[in-house]
Amino acid sequence: MKVFASIAAAALITSLSAPALAQFQKPEDAVKYRKAALTVMGTHFGRIGAMVNGRVPYDAAAAANSAAIVQTMSALPWEGFVAGTDKGDTRAEPEIWTEQAKFKEGAEKLQAETAKLAAAAKTGNLDAVKAAFGAVGQSCKACHDAYRKD
Amino acid sequence: MKVFASIAAAALITSLSAPALAQFQKPEDAVKYRKAALTVMGTHFGRIGAMVNGRVPYDAAAAANSAAIVQTMSALPWEGFVAGTDKGDTRAEPEIWTEQAKFKEGAEKLQAETAKLAAAAKTGNLDAVKAAFGAVGQSCKACHDAYRKD
Repeated sequence: MKVFASIAAAALITSLSAPALAQFQKPEDAVKYRKAALTVMGTHFGRIGAMVNGRVPYDAAAAANSAAIVQTMSALPWEGFVAGTDKGDTRAEPEIWTEQAKFKEGAEKLQAETAKLAAAAKTGNLDAVKAAFGAVGQSCKACHDAYRKD
Repeated sequence: MKVFASIAAAALITSLSAPALAQFQKPEDAVKYRKAALTVMGTHFGRIGAMVNGRVPYDAAAAANSAAIVQTMSALPWEGFVAGTDKGDTRAEPEIWTEQAKFKEGAEKLQAETAKLAAAAKTGNLDAVKAAFGAVGQSCKACHDAYRKD
């Protein structure tokens, strides 16, 4: 988990300080990449949610595996929000680029909460997973409400 | 839908860390998930490739970060290849499902090679990264040649 955490930390530093388009050939590539990272994150977050909400039985190993993936993925999408990529196949609101400090704060909050979720899932304690899951979900929602079109 | 997910997933991912919980609500979700995982993997593999091929300067920390992401992602797509998902928005060849042993072998080979790439990238030795990068690329190509439509 320390490895995962340090990867996430390194990616965060890179993603939030680098001139992002340099990492992508075309704006569409940046959009595709960030959506892909969010899809993988959302899929695994949803699997934990299914256990938290009792739709499927709690499987501690599966939850820990998914939580580690969620944590890793939570560092990735942000560099894909290259300036000018509120167009095309995206629901990104233009406020992302006029409220960069707030957007960045949200991204960092998510990463902090997913680290807690991964740690909770490692313990195998469902109550701890439930609490951490809720906090991650609030972090997702805050950003979606502010920066994602319906 | 649990049956839908478990038949192919259980047959396919015995070597992966993701346990049998893997499930998707709809076939389209499985396709979207596997493509997303491959997009994230391909993006980070491409960044290492740019360094290996001299298109951008070698950045050992960035290469190690991307290689760790490639390794993590290399375990994920396979459970998304659930039976019947050679239709729709996909280039998956139907042979994936008639050659399950070979397909699985390819997925395992990729994971073994990405582990070596991640280890090489951690050393910061560009020559080691180049060698491991080539082996991963061959593994990608073998599967794409056999199982991905042009």
